[in-house]
Amino acid sequence: MHRYRSHTCGALRKSDAGNIVRLSGWVHRVRDHGGVLFIDLRDHYGITQVVADPDSPCFNIAEMARGEWVLRIDGDVKPRSAETINANLPTGEIEVYARDIEVLSKADELPLPVFGEPDYPEDIRLKYRFLDLRRETLHSNIMQRTRIIAKMREEMNKIEFTEFSTPILTASSPEGARDFLVPSRIHPGQFYALPQAPQQYKQLIMMSGFDRYFQIAPCFRDEDPRADRLPGEFYQLDLEMSFVEQDEILETMEPVMRNVFEAFAGGKPVTQNFRRIAYDDAIRMYGSDKPDLRNPIVMQDVSEHFRGSGFGVFAGILDADPKHQVWAIPVKGAGSRKHCDRMNSWAQGEGQPGMGYIFWRELEGKFDAAGPIAKNIGEERTEALRQQLGLEIGDAVFFAAGDPKKFAAFAGSARQKAGEEAGLIDEDRFELCWIVDFPFYEWDEDNKRVEFAHNPFSMPQGGKEALDAATTEEQQLALKAYQYDLVCNGFEIASGGIRNHLPDTMVKAFEYAGLSKETVEERFGGLYRAFQYGAPPHGGMAAGVDRVVMLLVGAKNLREITMFPMNQQARDVLMGAPGEVGNEQLRELNLRINPIIKD
Amino acid sequence: MHRYRSHTCGALRKSDAGNIVRLSGWVHRVRDHGGVLFIDLRDHYGITQVVADPDSPCFNIAEMARGEWVLRIDGDVKPRSAETINANLPTGEIEVYARDIEVLSKADELPLPVFGEPDYPEDIRLKYRFLDLRRETLHSNIMQRTRIIAKMREEMNKIEFTEFSTPILTASSPEGARDFLVPSRIHPGQFYALPQAPQQYKQLIMMSGFDRYFQIAPCFRDEDPRADRLPGEFYQLDLEMSFVEQDEILETMEPVMRNVFEAFAGGKPVTQNFRRIAYDDAIRMYGSDKPDLRNPIVMQDVSEHFRGSGFGVFAGILDADPKHQVWAIPVKGAGSRKHCDRMNSWAQGEGQPGMGYIFWRELEGKFDAAGPIAKNIGEERTEALRQQLGLEIGDAVFFAAGDPKKFAAFAGSARQKAGEEAGLIDEDRFELCWIVDFPFYEWDEDNKRVEFAHNPFSMPQGGKEALDAATTEEQQLALKAYQYDLVCNGFEIASGGIRNHLPDTMVKAFEYAGLSKETVEERFGGLYRAFQYGAPPHGGMAAGVDRVVMLLVGAKNLREITMFPMNQQARDVLMGAPGEVGNEQLRELNLRINPIIKD
Repeated sequence: MHRYRSHTCGALRKSDAGNIVRLSGWVHRVRDHGGVLFIDLRDHYGITQVVADPDSPCFNIAEMARGEWVLRIDGDVKPRSAETINANLPTGEIEVYARDIEVLSKADELPLPVFGEPDYPEDIRLKYRFLDLRRETLHSNIMQRTRIIAKMREEMNKIEFTEFSTPILTASSPEGARDFLVPSRIHPGQFYALPQAPQQYKQLIMMSGFDRYFQIAPCFRDEDPRADRLPGEFYQLDLEMSFVEQDEILETMEPVMRNVFEAFAGGKPVTQNFRRIAYDDAIRMYGSDKPDLRNPIVMQDVSEHFRGSGFGVFAGILDADPKHQVWAIPVKGAGSRKHCDRMNSWAQGEGQPGMGYIFWRELEGKFDAAGPIAKNIGEERTEALRQQLGLEIGDAVFFAAGDPKKFAAFAGSARQKAGEEAGLIDEDRFELCWIVDFPFYEWDEDNKRVEFAHNPFSMPQGGKEALDAATTEEQQLALKAYQYDLVCNGFEIASGGIRNHLPDTMVKAFEYAGLSKETVEERFGGLYRAFQYGAPPHGGMAAGVDRVVMLLVGAKNLREITMFPMNQQARDVLMGAPGEVGNEQLRELNLRINPIIKD
Repeated sequence: MHRYRSHTCGALRKSDAGNIVRLSGWVHRVRDHGGVLFIDLRDHYGITQVVADPDSPCFNIAEMARGEWVLRIDGDVKPRSAETINANLPTGEIEVYARDIEVLSKADELPLPVFGEPDYPEDIRLKYRFLDLRRETLHSNIMQRTRIIAKMREEMNKIEFTEFSTPILTASSPEGARDFLVPSRIHPGQFYALPQAPQQYKQLIMMSGFDRYFQIAPCFRDEDPRADRLPGEFYQLDLEMSFVEQDEILETMEPVMRNVFEAFAGGKPVTQNFRRIAYDDAIRMYGSDKPDLRNPIVMQDVSEHFRGSGFGVFAGILDADPKHQVWAIPVKGAGSRKHCDRMNSWAQGEGQPGMGYIFWRELEGKFDAAGPIAKNIGEERTEALRQQLGLEIGDAVFFAAGDPKKFAAFAGSARQKAGEEAGLIDEDRFELCWIVDFPFYEWDEDNKRVEFAHNPFSMPQGGKEALDAATTEEQQLALKAYQYDLVCNGFEIASGGIRNHLPDTMVKAFEYAGLSKETVEERFGGLYRAFQYGAPPHGGMAAGVDRVVMLLVGAKNLREITMFPMNQQARDVLMGAPGEVGNEQLRELNLRINPIIKD
C-alpha cells in the first residue's frame, strides 16, 4: 500500500464501502459525540469523515489530535445511515472507521483558524498565509485563478499564438510609472529595471519575424499602494500580431475573452457580440470610457430644451460658451422626491452644488412633472424633454450642465449612482464592449502643448498624412489613435493598439509632443533601431489577468485572488521582505544607503 | 481582401495555381535572371518565390526592393515547370507572378545579413538581435524552445499538477549564490531580492494544502558570467508534491521527461527505463555524479592486482593508506601505443604526472600486454587484470591511483576523454538516468565540520533517528539524503529531494552543520514557521529548461536558444541595460553610488 494514501480525502463514495483505505490529510475539526470521535480529515481534494470509537486501538491517538495536525489514517469504509448522509459533501455517503492513525506532523495552537473561516485581521492572514490558503474560499479562488490562466493559454494556443518569455532584467523604460531598479554588481553605478510591461520586447518580437506572440507576463510598477492595486508585481495576458489591422485584433481576441468568461461565469450571461463604441460616444452616452453596460441608462444632450428657457442657471451656462451643454441622465423608476433628494445629497457629497432633476407623477390621469426645473421651464418644454427621453410616470431625469469635458466624469458617476439606487444594474451578468477611436493626443496644461494620450507607440488614424495635416493644436487634439480598450462591467480589462512602425511617422508624432528625434532614439533605442530594418505593420493588446480573475470569482480585493501578496505597505510579512542587507553586499553593489531621516 | 495577406508565405501549393493571392513578408533575397526578378518573400511561416517580369506594372518597385524590406505583393499563382520545382521548399511547386507591390517598410543597409546566415561577431548579433532572430537557425531554435516548454506544461497538466506563479519580488535567500537586490522606495535602506528559485514558496504551497504544484519558473542568480551560464535569469520546470516518497516522485516525473525528450528527439533513441544509480556507485563506476551513459566504459577497482606488486608506484600508494585504491578505465579498441600516448599527454595537460596504461596486442596467436606497468607487475597479474576487465586484443586500460575521493573526478574526465578518443560515444542518443542517495553532509575544510552537501531542505534517510545516531563526523558524513538528480548525456538536467518537514529533525540537521535553531528561524522564517502548523510530507524537483532545450536542439551555447540574452559582460546591448539612472530616482530610493575607483 502507498505510504500515505490509497485515496484522497475527496475520493470515497458509497461504492467503496467494505474496503480498507488509507487517507492522509489535515484535521479540519474534531467532534466528540458521546465518547465517539468524529474527525473531518481534509486535503486539497476534499473532506472525509473519520470515526474513532473508544474500542479502536487508535482511539488514544485520535483523542490527542488537534486542528491542522497532519494524520495518516487507515480504516474501513462504511456507508452512513440514511439520516446521517451529508448531501453537501461528495464523500457524504460514507465514513471511515479508523483502525490505525499515524501523526505525520503536529500543529501548535493556531494563530488563525482554518475551519469556519472567521474574519481575521489582514496582517495575521498574510503572516500565516499558509493557514489562510488552507481556508476554503481563498483556496478555491487561487485554484480558479490558475484555471482561468490555463484557459487563457489554451485559447491562445488554439489560435496559434506562440508563448515567449521576455527578459525580466531589462532597461529602465520611459513610459508611465516608476520602475523597480536592480543595481548591477558587474557594472558599478548602473541599474537594470524590471519591466513595467513587455511592450518594447513584444514589438521587437514582431520585428524579429515571429507572427503571433503571447505571454502571461509578469509586470512590475513601483507605485504607491492603492486599494485596487497590489504593490509590486501583476500579470497580463500580453499579445502582439504582425500584418494586422485593428479589426482583426478585435475579431481575434473577442472569442478568446468571451470563451474565458463563459468558462468561468458560472452560468451568468456573457455578452455574445461585443459592441464597439467610439471613445467620444462613450463619454457622451455614459460619461466614461469604462462604461458599465449592465446599467441601461444612456445620457442625452438636452441643451435645446434649456436654451433661452426660464431656468436661468442652465440658460446662462448655455449662453456663456457655445461649447457648453446640458446633459440628461434619464432614470426609469427613480420618480420620487425621496430618490431625487438622495441623488441631490450624493452630488453635494461629491463637491457639486447639487443635482437638478425632474420626476413624473400621475395627476388626474396625466403627467405631472415635479421639481423646480420643470416649473421654471414650463410645461411645453418639460413635455418635449420627457418625450425625447422616453420617460413615463414614476421615472426621473437628472441634469449636468457646463463644459462637457469638465462635467462628463461627474455625469458618468451620477449615471452609475442613479442606476445602482434605482436597482437597474443586473449584478449577474458580464457585459463586455470595446472602446475604440481614443484620442491620439491630449492637452498638457503644464507644458501648454499636446502630449500622447495613451502611449507613444500607437499609430495615429490616417498615418503620417493626417499628422502632417494637423498643424494646429485643435487639429492635433482631434486626431484619433488606433487604440482600444476592452471593458467589462465598468472595468477596463484590456488595452491595446496598432503600433506606429514607421520611423518618419514616429518622429513626426513625437515632434508635436515636443520630443526630438534624438529623444526618441535615446528613449526607445532598441525598438527605434529595429524600425530602420524592415518593420512589419503590427499591433496587439494586454489584458489584466488579476482584474479578469477578480470579476470572475467575484472578489473585491486583489489579496483574495493572489497567493502570496504583499500588504498595503509593500511588505511581504510572510517571508520578511524587504529586509536589511549586509554591508558586504552593498559594497559589492557599490552602493551606500543615505542616512535615514524620519519626518 | 485582407489588407496584408490572403495567405502566409508558407501556405501556397500546386492546388492554388490559377488563384490571385496576396502575400506580405520580408525580402529574403532578390535575384536578377536576365531581366526577370525573383524575390524570395519570407515570413514566419515560410518562403514563397515571387516573379516580377519587366512587363509587370510593379517591376519598378520590385527593382527598388532590397534585403529585409517589407512588401505586400498581389499576384497570380502559377505552377513551376518540372525543372524549376524546389523540393526543399514546401511552396516549391509554385511561384507568384506579381501584379502589384506595396512597400510596407524599408530597411537601411543591413549590419547583419539574414539570408545565408554567415558567421558574425556576437556583439553585432546581440545589438541587432531582431535581425539575428530572423535567421533560420535561431528562429527555429526559439520556436523549438517554446514548443518544448509548452510540452512540459501539457505533460504536467495531464497528470493534474497545477501551475502557480510565485512572487518575483521577495526576500533575500540564504542559499547558494548571490541574490539580485531591488531597493525598496517605501522602506528606505531595505531591499527585496529576486528569487534564486521558488524553493521556499513551493514548500509553502504544500503547507497551504495544495497537492501538486508546478511552474515554469524564472530564477535569478547574480553570478559571474560563465560560458555555460547566462548572466541574470534562467528558467526551471519547478514542481512539488505532498504525501509522497522519493519513488513516487521519480515514477511521476520519469514519463514526463521521457515524453518531452521523445517528442523533440527527432527520432534519436531515448532511454525507456531510467536506471537509478546510487551516488557512491556513480562515482565508483563513472567518476562522476553526472555520468554520460552513452559512454559504455565502466571503471573498476583493481587494487588487488597491484597490492605488493612489482609496480612500485601503485604498490606504494596502496600501502600508504588503507583508503587508497587503484581504478581501471577499460577502453575497447584503444589498444595502440598512439592512443595510449595521447591519453598520457592529455592527462599531463590536466596537471597529472601522466597516465599509466596497459594495452593488448596479438603476438603469435597470444595476448601480448604492452606498456611499462604490464612489465612491472608480470604476466600473471596482467592476465588476471585482463580477465577481470574482459578486455581483448586491441583494447587498453588506463589507471588512476590514490585516494578515490581525490582522484575520482579526474578518473571520470579520463573515462569521458577515453570514450571520445576511442569513438565509443554514440552522439545520436539521449541516455537518461537518476542519481540517488546523495550524501546528506559533506566536509567543510574551512570550518572543520560537516555542512549540507546539497541544500538544507532535504530529509536525511532514516530521519531524526538516523541523525541522532550519527554522533561522529564519520557517521554524519555517511548519512544519505533523499536527494536525487536526473542526468542526460553527462549533464545534470534536474535535481530534487524529499524535504525535511519536521521542525525537530530540521533543527538537529542544522545543529551538526553548526547552525542554531535561531539561525534556522532567521534564515527560513516563513517556512520554519509553517512547519509548526501541520506540515505534510512533501518533495519535488526542478529541471533546467535551458539545458533540456540545448540538448534537444543540439545547441552548444545558451545564446542560441535564448531570445534576448545578455552578453558575457551581463549587458543587454539591444535595450541598453544596465544603464545610469537619474539623481532623483536614486534620492527616492535613498541610495548613493560610491565613487567608482577604476583599478
